[in-house]
Amino acid sequence: MAQDMEKTNEFKKGLEGVVAGDSRICLVNGEEGKLYYRGYRIEDLAQNCSFEEVAYLMLYSKLPNKKELAKFSKGLAKARKLPKEVIKIIKLKAKSANSMEVLRTAVSALAANQPEVDKLTKDEQIGAGISLIAKMPVIIAFCNRLKKDMEIVKPDPKLGHAANFLYMLYGRTPSETETKGMDMDFVLHAEHSFNASTFSVRITVSTLSDMYSAFTTGIGVLKGPLHGGAAQEVGAMMLDIKNPANTDGYINNILSQHGKVMGFGHRIYKTYDPRARILNGMARKMSEEKKDMAWYDIAQKIERIMQEKKNLYPNVDFYSAIVYKQLGIEMEMNPAIFAIGRSAGWVAHVMEQYGDNRLIRPLDNYIGDIGLKFVPIDSRK
Amino acid sequence: MAQDMEKTNEFKKGLEGVVAGDSRICLVNGEEGKLYYRGYRIEDLAQNCSFEEVAYLMLYSKLPNKKELAKFSKGLAKARKLPKEVIKIIKLKAKSANSMEVLRTAVSALAANQPEVDKLTKDEQIGAGISLIAKMPVIIAFCNRLKKDMEIVKPDPKLGHAANFLYMLYGRTPSETETKGMDMDFVLHAEHSFNASTFSVRITVSTLSDMYSAFTTGIGVLKGPLHGGAAQEVGAMMLDIKNPANTDGYINNILSQHGKVMGFGHRIYKTYDPRARILNGMARKMSEEKKDMAWYDIAQKIERIMQEKKNLYPNVDFYSAIVYKQLGIEMEMNPAIFAIGRSAGWVAHVMEQYGDNRLIRPLDNYIGDIGLKFVPIDSRK
Repeated sequence: MAQDMEKTNEFKKGLEGVVAGDSRICLVNGEEGKLYYRGYRIEDLAQNCSFEEVAYLMLYSKLPNKKELAKFSKGLAKARKLPKEVIKIIKLKAKSANSMEVLRTAVSALAANQPEVDKLTKDEQIGAGISLIAKMPVIIAFCNRLKKDMEIVKPDPKLGHAANFLYMLYGRTPSETETKGMDMDFVLHAEHSFNASTFSVRITVSTLSDMYSAFTTGIGVLKGPLHGGAAQEVGAMMLDIKNPANTDGYINNILSQHGKVMGFGHRIYKTYDPRARILNGMARKMSEEKKDMAWYDIAQKIERIMQEKKNLYPNVDFYSAIVYKQLGIEMEMNPAIFAIGRSAGWVAHVMEQYGDNRLIRPLDNYIGDIGLKFVPIDSRK
Repeated sequence: MAQDMEKTNEFKKGLEGVVAGDSRICLVNGEEGKLYYRGYRIEDLAQNCSFEEVAYLMLYSKLPNKKELAKFSKGLAKARKLPKEVIKIIKLKAKSANSMEVLRTAVSALAANQPEVDKLTKDEQIGAGISLIAKMPVIIAFCNRLKKDMEIVKPDPKLGHAANFLYMLYGRTPSETETKGMDMDFVLHAEHSFNASTFSVRITVSTLSDMYSAFTTGIGVLKGPLHGGAAQEVGAMMLDIKNPANTDGYINNILSQHGKVMGFGHRIYKTYDPRARILNGMARKMSEEKKDMAWYDIAQKIERIMQEKKNLYPNVDFYSAIVYKQLGIEMEMNPAIFAIGRSAGWVAHVMEQYGDNRLIRPLDNYIGDIGLKFVPIDSRK
């Protein structure tokens, strides 16, 4: 046990506060509530950039000029076409599985004898990433329409990433506000340093496994209610509360039973999550335009109670739930929408991990038995 | 950056030597070359136990008596039946994807609106694990036969886990030595503490994601050549060397170019991997019975050279490659065979993580730019 002797009891549960590696992708300053992608303030990016611009920034470490963006967008549009066998697989599973299960299965099925990492150029690796970024919204939109017994709507190459996704969902061209709301949500979810899904993505490729494995990992990890599933739980709470007048009673009841109010608090942010602040504005704008203020008003009340009584601030999931509602996106799809955004960050982390790889393999602190006497099966009690 | 200020440069690359949590499942004593599952010496288990006994030990923390084993084995046999839609998916992908890609996709597809963790009892969770342990060999065997345009062979409920797998592969009942070789290999791969795939499995469920997500993660991580893909690379090297007489020249050539000889060295073991020692005996026995000593003789020579020149010892992958060859298992399938064994450990780790959960989410050491001036797209160069 020499390996563990000096380390017993020294570990941090959940690796909280433990630095696991260098990165140049994203800075989360949890004390001050600031977030930067590749050095740029999230506020600048969310207000001014499309998801395509941010995805380009993630992959190439610079914001694209008009020509670069046009080429990148064209590449995404071209990559949206799904292989026939994958469409068949989506059809086989759309009714019996939820969006994240279908997404995970279809993304896994996109791999077809993927060559090993060292047999691909860096451009080919990024190409696999771009292909996945492009195809994930198509898988999710197809799945959603098939669930509702509606014909699938093929992608429109003239539309941007966010607008095309809504077009495939709705079967109509989305409004300007809808497109901006979707785009902003994708941008705000694109990256967040070594969160659970992204860190697992990095472990996946630290074995020199491939981009498709990395993405199936990411989707499976993001699926959990403590990660990508949180917005969905916020939505369920909103449905439960229903009317702003019920908010105080509902929340106070949870708090008096020491329950958890979804959408509040964050491992890293000790103040207001800057993404929540931005989405708050978008949620208000969309609710006003739709003349449907109930969820937004409930949210404002919950935010005030939580700040006063628990000193907790909303996280990104809290206002995402309202944006999704105003976009007509079913709650069941919420984690999958998160995955569409986060796909850009995953590719960046895969490439960064490949670029300076070392197998990620920690130790455990063994606290079980050692050297038990083996008893043959005939003599076991 | 308060969060990082005190931690800069303090991290261990690849989390090497970092303890990430308590565990009672497996002790790897790398200094002395000892391995224990739930307190039992690996030598006792590998020589005396079937995979079913070891899987039971993993899941229930005790070795089963005859009655418990019979019930557990019956449960596994019953759970081998694949849903029709999953068989269709295997057929869609068997020709265009490798075994690990098909396994990952089919395992993902087994999930059908999996309820959230907190809505399942502990028995239901373990039940999902048993179902996956039972079905993985079926998926792999079906895929292998479909690749070769052969009819699939349905499981035989009268056969044990190892014998049934070989039966589905071969289309005939395996010999006693074949069954023992396969069983021993499954047992030796069943568990190995916080290795990359298992640690990712734990991260997956630390978000309260489900068993199916955990397994798709595990398979994708294991797929990498630095993890489950290593035996396959050993096999490729053996094919290259072909004749024992070529061994010295081949290996010395790699060493003089500072290349890596596959199957040697291990992050944790600083001496002989106890699993390799056990499989060495099995590899010799099988090679002698088949009167096919070439790979085994090559292996003995490589082992001597590596010990003399590099002070490195073989790991489990090195002798696995020979056992697989003597079992007639194609190299392409090697990582999938590893996954069949490791599935037992994954379920144990999922349950242990659920039992005392905290979201696993480390930090990164950000070394990129901060506060870059945003330039609108029209003005970008």
